[in-house]
Amino acid sequence: MNDAATKVIPIRWEDENSEIVWLDNSKIPWKEVLVSSKDLERLIKAIQGLEIRGAPILGEAGAYGAAMIANNSPNSNSEIIKNMAQQGAALAAARPTAVNLSWGVKKIQDAVNIAVDNGLNPSEVKAAAIEAAKKIQEENIRATEKIGRHGMGLIHDGDVLLTVCNAGTLACDGIGTSTAPIRMAWAAGKEFEVLVTYTAPLYQGARLTAWELHKDGIPVRVITDNMAGHLMREKRAAAIWAGADRILGNRGAESGTVYNKIGTFGLALMAKALREEGINVQMNVAAPTSTIDPHTKTSDVKIEQRKPGEVESLFGAIKIVPDGVGVLNPAFDMTPPHLVSAIVTELGIAMQPYNITIPELLSKEGSMVKLP
Amino acid sequence: MNDAATKVIPIRWEDENSEIVWLDNSKIPWKEVLVSSKDLERLIKAIQGLEIRGAPILGEAGAYGAAMIANNSPNSNSEIIKNMAQQGAALAAARPTAVNLSWGVKKIQDAVNIAVDNGLNPSEVKAAAIEAAKKIQEENIRATEKIGRHGMGLIHDGDVLLTVCNAGTLACDGIGTSTAPIRMAWAAGKEFEVLVTYTAPLYQGARLTAWELHKDGIPVRVITDNMAGHLMREKRAAAIWAGADRILGNRGAESGTVYNKIGTFGLALMAKALREEGINVQMNVAAPTSTIDPHTKTSDVKIEQRKPGEVESLFGAIKIVPDGVGVLNPAFDMTPPHLVSAIVTELGIAMQPYNITIPELLSKEGSMVKLP
Repeated sequence: MNDAATKVIPIRWEDENSEIVWLDNSKIPWKEVLVSSKDLERLIKAIQGLEIRGAPILGEAGAYGAAMIANNSPNSNSEIIKNMAQQGAALAAARPTAVNLSWGVKKIQDAVNIAVDNGLNPSEVKAAAIEAAKKIQEENIRATEKIGRHGMGLIHDGDVLLTVCNAGTLACDGIGTSTAPIRMAWAAGKEFEVLVTYTAPLYQGARLTAWELHKDGIPVRVITDNMAGHLMREKRAAAIWAGADRILGNRGAESGTVYNKIGTFGLALMAKALREEGINVQMNVAAPTSTIDPHTKTSDVKIEQRKPGEVESLFGAIKIVPDGVGVLNPAFDMTPPHLVSAIVTELGIAMQPYNITIPELLSKEGSMVKLP
Repeated sequence: MNDAATKVIPIRWEDENSEIVWLDNSKIPWKEVLVSSKDLERLIKAIQGLEIRGAPILGEAGAYGAAMIANNSPNSNSEIIKNMAQQGAALAAARPTAVNLSWGVKKIQDAVNIAVDNGLNPSEVKAAAIEAAKKIQEENIRATEKIGRHGMGLIHDGDVLLTVCNAGTLACDGIGTSTAPIRMAWAAGKEFEVLVTYTAPLYQGARLTAWELHKDGIPVRVITDNMAGHLMREKRAAAIWAGADRILGNRGAESGTVYNKIGTFGLALMAKALREEGINVQMNVAAPTSTIDPHTKTSDVKIEQRKPGEVESLFGAIKIVPDGVGVLNPAFDMTPPHLVSAIVTELGIAMQPYNITIPELLSKEGSMVKLP
């Protein structure tokens, strides 16, 4: 494994000042800016402004944020629990689509409740919250390595792979999720090339994924989003590797539905149509089991609509949309299970039919979520 | 028809100064800059720098450029013919994929040859070249109106339509090609919405098509390229309307193959896959018959690869690709005929099987090209 990649620490808890430190994703690749804060509003602003982004890192941010709420509370268990409930709800609601944020908050709420029920004093409860958040991060990092080991077998010498957005270290900690099989396959000596899609309107593919993989020495080229169909055919691409913000995982027909960055569904549609043209492009998704949501239906999932400004102008600097013309800005899309070739998790690979294979995964020891 | 749209004059011959005047597309929507020149190198630079772009306008630029070559020549028929051959070849080669540029040049070369063979003197030959170029422009403008009348029947109340790049007035003169059915349907009182795709890396959709249609009062919103799949499903889109830089049109199986701006093929793939999901999205192409190339096979068509800088940075101002990372920049892609629902020309609509319907079109009176 390349050292450079794993030296990127996207978020951490700083014991000395009891604060959260994060790498501002919105400044990459131009500057590596570390931000530190013990202020919940600042953290929420960072999440909404995409300084902190990516499903698993949002889980960590939710956990550290909740631990910070506990830690900032007066030395009273009832005050801690009240703040955890009220401020925790505000934190969990900072972005609507990703399940991980609220998952991380809830994990710390649970840890606090257990600590209080076990009769710990407020200082001990706060320490328990922080420890629980650190444990989530450690588990996330280990999960990315396991995702890599499970998924690397799907990558072969000579492959051309596509990525969408950034589900790398910056988004997922460790060696990333969609990048984990890529990095593990590369470390194992496999030779291939990665085409990184722009991922407008914030270009997290070009800015972040290309930056990470290039640091690792993996051959990578950037393409605009509208080149994907043409280049998958021209280069006979083997697979698209996407992350996920939420994967539906009950026992119903919607199991295996993947919510991810806008553009994922389009790539899945193109992959299917290309397979019918004789180009065998797989649509692979890599995510920890914490991304799986066994409770929700598609009709309940709200796709986040972000501000028009992101689409109207390029980084607020070059206004490409004429004055008076409106835009749309859905941040995510939904890919139905029949378009998903494989879902790679830290507990193994699920393939169709997901209404059977995902519950099997979630029943394994170590699963981060359980079927109800 | 909205007056504002047809008042846009993308290119013309200025008799007074014997020069070509064009609207610099690369400055829209920020500034409306008219450039005038009688210098061939300046014209070639404008074509390569996308100040002048779009298949039919390139035909006009080729014609006016060839007329300018004749007009700038010494008063000797042999000199005119020599310059037409040598400088005309340089002009025709300014961009490799669009057939219209060389078509326009050749039309004027033919007109000059006829004029010389008819015994006209050099001044008369020059005048004949200029008149022939003006006639091409007039025919182009009339062709767009005919395309609009033929294609408007494919648009219905309540439709959501997508466009790719710009095949409007700026690219095609008149009321555009892919925009012609849209404008005619709008003028006829049909109500619909147009989603204009960004079309990276130069954003000609956002900058040019949205600007044109908004001037006409047509409801238009801009979307990033990677939103197309999601929004076609969400809004149950009725059709994609694309232009074409080259359409293959012999009697073989490749007849109906469409070369157009990068991204067109991806949209066609998504449309096909969406039709299989129950969303009946049509893939419509609108172009004059001058775009049809009855001589060439796919194996002979070279896809223009443009400079990396266009992809590496946004308008040369914001470098989004990290240093050291390569890019790809194919400017066009190829859509096979089985993915094309309809090809709307000034002589009527061709549908599958194109190896029969395109030759039928080309055999009609008024066809700008003929089958060999």
